[in-house]
Amino acid sequence: MTKPGIPKGTRDFSPAEMAKRNYIFGVIRSVFENYGFRQIETPSMENLSTLMGKYGEEGDKLLFKILNSGDWAHDLQDEELLGRNSIRLTNRISEKGLRYDLTVPFARYVVQHRDEVTFPFKRYQIQPVWRADRPQKGRYREFFQCDADVVGSDSLLYEAEMIEMIDQAFRKFGFPVTIKVNNRKILAGIAELIDAAEKIVEITVAIDKLDKIGMEGVTKELAERGLSDGQIEKLKPVILLQGNNQEKIASLRETLKGITIAEKGLDEMEFVMKCVGESDIENKVEIDLTLARGLNYYTGTILEVKADNVEMGSISGGGRYDNLTGIFGMEGVSGVGFSFGADRIYDVLTMLNLFPEEAQRGTKLIFLAFDQKGIEYSLPMVRKARRAGIATEIYPEPAKMKKQMTYANNNNIPFVAIVGDNEMAEGKVMLKNMVSGEQTLMTIEEIIDKIL
Amino acid sequence: MTKPGIPKGTRDFSPAEMAKRNYIFGVIRSVFENYGFRQIETPSMENLSTLMGKYGEEGDKLLFKILNSGDWAHDLQDEELLGRNSIRLTNRISEKGLRYDLTVPFARYVVQHRDEVTFPFKRYQIQPVWRADRPQKGRYREFFQCDADVVGSDSLLYEAEMIEMIDQAFRKFGFPVTIKVNNRKILAGIAELIDAAEKIVEITVAIDKLDKIGMEGVTKELAERGLSDGQIEKLKPVILLQGNNQEKIASLRETLKGITIAEKGLDEMEFVMKCVGESDIENKVEIDLTLARGLNYYTGTILEVKADNVEMGSISGGGRYDNLTGIFGMEGVSGVGFSFGADRIYDVLTMLNLFPEEAQRGTKLIFLAFDQKGIEYSLPMVRKARRAGIATEIYPEPAKMKKQMTYANNNNIPFVAIVGDNEMAEGKVMLKNMVSGEQTLMTIEEIIDKIL
Repeated sequence: MTKPGIPKGTRDFSPAEMAKRNYIFGVIRSVFENYGFRQIETPSMENLSTLMGKYGEEGDKLLFKILNSGDWAHDLQDEELLGRNSIRLTNRISEKGLRYDLTVPFARYVVQHRDEVTFPFKRYQIQPVWRADRPQKGRYREFFQCDADVVGSDSLLYEAEMIEMIDQAFRKFGFPVTIKVNNRKILAGIAELIDAAEKIVEITVAIDKLDKIGMEGVTKELAERGLSDGQIEKLKPVILLQGNNQEKIASLRETLKGITIAEKGLDEMEFVMKCVGESDIENKVEIDLTLARGLNYYTGTILEVKADNVEMGSISGGGRYDNLTGIFGMEGVSGVGFSFGADRIYDVLTMLNLFPEEAQRGTKLIFLAFDQKGIEYSLPMVRKARRAGIATEIYPEPAKMKKQMTYANNNNIPFVAIVGDNEMAEGKVMLKNMVSGEQTLMTIEEIIDKIL
Repeated sequence: MTKPGIPKGTRDFSPAEMAKRNYIFGVIRSVFENYGFRQIETPSMENLSTLMGKYGEEGDKLLFKILNSGDWAHDLQDEELLGRNSIRLTNRISEKGLRYDLTVPFARYVVQHRDEVTFPFKRYQIQPVWRADRPQKGRYREFFQCDADVVGSDSLLYEAEMIEMIDQAFRKFGFPVTIKVNNRKILAGIAELIDAAEKIVEITVAIDKLDKIGMEGVTKELAERGLSDGQIEKLKPVILLQGNNQEKIASLRETLKGITIAEKGLDEMEFVMKCVGESDIENKVEIDLTLARGLNYYTGTILEVKADNVEMGSISGGGRYDNLTGIFGMEGVSGVGFSFGADRIYDVLTMLNLFPEEAQRGTKLIFLAFDQKGIEYSLPMVRKARRAGIATEIYPEPAKMKKQMTYANNNNIPFVAIVGDNEMAEGKVMLKNMVSGEQTLMTIEEIIDKIL
């Protein structure tokens, strides 16, 4: 018998994994709600007209497309068929695709429901997305995104709130992170400073290597990328930017003086830093000009989170955008959004062994009996424990002790109630604590008290 | 500007709808876990080899199929293309489909992971499924199923547990239901009694009309369906079956005496009824021989739930099956499963206005300030409230009172903290209870105490 399988890049989640995943989603959800975000869900499939062209040419290819129902081949022309142009034929036989992220469906949602939505609209969304990417370690074809966005306001309070929210979430997860902050307007100002707007990505990539290759290396790399000596000279204070956040802002104010867009970006950053500074956040917040995620998308603040002391890429990120819904014809909707990377958080919690005990248990109590009489004796107690809110099972047959204990062990059940003749004679059961090994003869009321 | 839309038969869920749906899923989940069921999740897409042929010919057509990635048209032959046989071509250009239910993926899961799973395996699963059905009122192309199954045991305790679980769930939802119980083996015995195994569905359909068309009508209908007078005469005690559950069982024992399969079915039913009778369940449990759901699938107990006093089809159902995993080559895995119909429960709760207040609120408290000073005054209080676990917002700009109050109203926020000059002078805020209209000058500590 050959085992059936699942499509590559997809995953089954076992009960043990689900408990941990639910813990992560629960923390994220509770933080989102604590900050006033409201949940929405959108359909797994969107019209291809909604999805196509929103993620670049490469993205179009990575969309999972759904074949039209019914006799889809019937109306195709001979030439179309024999042309074997997969892209063109796809347009003819598929009208729907699986969502690729939560951002485009959210933009579609806002435009479609704009008459029902009150702005600013704080929404969160935790749903799977699908990408026909080449599967590899840590990259899946189906994975969950956990996004929070506020749209319809350009208030910088929301940027500060995002940072506080990130801090809250990782404090709950129990490992320290560094929250890196950049601002697209400052990067634009830097590009303006050296008159090289189109080189902004290359510049940030080169600067990012300062620690590794030193100023000399960076200079060399920038020259290779076509920057003149004069341009590199002007960039020097930016490349060598150091100190705490205040000092960095002060230095940039000096370097970028008179460049309107940069000054606006520095004002924004200063305001956000001030708000955050007055809060009770515990994780480090660090200005990092090399942070260049989503540069074609973000227009103001850019955020990224890295776990401290762990070899792992960014585990969450987000930023401010100015035109979420323009793609659907509704202009001028500014917003700021943030996405928690649940899979990577899962990996970090696993590496650091930080999942709480609670996230690793299902059933709390199981009754083991060895004859029909024992089972009947147990059932009213099983019900009592359940009514008291304790997740309870009874092994359904009078099987051998070893078999029943294996069941309890494999399912990681912490309390086992053993029902033998002696226990029944006393009107009690023998409660075994599976962690400590301790055994005590108890009534069901005592057990309920103990477990609660 | 034309509004973008979503594929027909799919839905967006707004924050208000999500809160209610989460309430329903939360109740179901808590009941499942209380009874020791463990959650799994399976991928949205399965290999078509897993799905095809499992739901009949019609089911195969209703599967959403995913177009292969890449240059899928490249290798197709001229004849294949020009044949325009949509079914045959689909096999060549699609390898994956969206899951149609949670049962087949669960069977696939059990077989694939049989070395990791401890039997009996109590699993629950709450995930969307997709069917390319013609959309109509109450029928969607994407909808959630909420299934609990125990596999790897034929203990009838699990049937009793399912009924108790159903009772628990609907007690939590707060409306009375009738839990109807049948047993496939009894139906098989009835068919054997009149030597008409192939007519079992017609018989149940005809009997079901007794209330409407009377014994005469039923007799006529059965005759039309090819039953002889002798057969109908033999059926009479079954058709006219009355009384409480005990009386029904007694009457059937008489009628079906000596028919082994029926006696087995009656033993099963009697055991389940005895267990349930000793429990504390509050909803009615009723033997109903006309219950004929899933007759090609269920082999023992059949369950169905109807809301009392509400015009609505069955809102949940399930039963015992003997060969879940045989389709994947693993024989002899018996199980019993149950599925809550979340969409219909949603409709009943809406009709009866039974959603708890808690399921209809997000943010608990919002601060409204009218200048920058007011906002800065509020921020530390916003943080305090959040740290205390209260979902809190601040309106991000010093907008007009009316606009801010509209925001609070539209978002159904029960407490509004108004921050004007007088309030600031006193070191307090004016807390308005949006339900009662009451206003009180309070400190943030007092507000936190009040709301918690």
